[in-house]
Amino acid sequence: MTRTIRLVVFVMLLILTLTANMWARPDNNAAPPLDYRKRTHVRSALVDPKSPTAGRYGGLHHIYANEKAMEGYRSGQFPDGSIIVFDLLETRESAGTTLEGPRKFIDVMTKDSKRYAETGGWGFEEFAGDNHTDPVLTAEAKAACFSCHTRQRAHGFVFSTFRK
Amino acid sequence: MTRTIRLVVFVMLLILTLTANMWARPDNNAAPPLDYRKRTHVRSALVDPKSPTAGRYGGLHHIYANEKAMEGYRSGQFPDGSIIVFDLLETRESAGTTLEGPRKFIDVMTKDSKRYAETGGWGFEEFAGDNHTDPVLTAEAKAACFSCHTRQRAHGFVFSTFRK
Repeated sequence: MTRTIRLVVFVMLLILTLTANMWARPDNNAAPPLDYRKRTHVRSALVDPKSPTAGRYGGLHHIYANEKAMEGYRSGQFPDGSIIVFDLLETRESAGTTLEGPRKFIDVMTKDSKRYAETGGWGFEEFAGDNHTDPVLTAEAKAACFSCHTRQRAHGFVFSTFRK
Repeated sequence: MTRTIRLVVFVMLLILTLTANMWARPDNNAAPPLDYRKRTHVRSALVDPKSPTAGRYGGLHHIYANEKAMEGYRSGQFPDGSIIVFDLLETRESAGTTLEGPRKFIDVMTKDSKRYAETGGWGFEEFAGDNHTDPVLTAEAKAACFSCHTRQRAHGFVFSTFRK
């Protein structure tokens, strides 16, 4: 009997080991969005110099979502742990083609309904260039992010939709 | 003893069941590239009407790679099972911003060094619009794909590089 118990314990540990990676991968929320380039690409757009928002948002942007945020795109309800990254790149022209240039910044929205209760459950942050460790937004800038995103309250404060 | 064997068999089946999804997910090569939108986004570009390639490639394109193809982007050697999808979208303008429109087609490269031995190990295929089941390329068109891609022989016949 003791031998059977030892076997069961061993096998349970084996299952945990084999499946730990499976459980851990969908949302590694503890980490900063360093790995967002492997997340799902939601959609893209090119903001031309003639756009009224070109001063801040001019360039080619891509939006990425982790698995929890993808649930939100499907249901309209973004669960805690959702992370959405707006990745803005400069562009350059080559023979009639607009190519991706250096990164201007990334904007990151992180859903935590307790921590960010005053801003619809979303935390807003920005990292300049390829930096992923030193956030740059002032409290006023974060308030401005939220103010604009309130227009999208009915879609969980998120502007983008998933392009199939 | 028989009871122990039964327990071991049961637990092995349990492990197989729990981990089957984990093994299947990285590269489900048997399936068509229906799920490519969840794969890693490699890079993008906008081909303007004034480009010499606009007739065929005009629009905003995104390139997606499965895990095996990502190994190839890192090493320059694309293993069998690599799948790369070139996703071409029409565009529309709105207030100085170029937005994604309907899909024109997807081009798919699939690496199988035995099956496609005559074309560098790569199979070339295309699906029109949102169709993922009815390939449209003639043998001549596939030969033309390969002919152009031979310029990239030193990079495994792949034009794109992963944009970090």
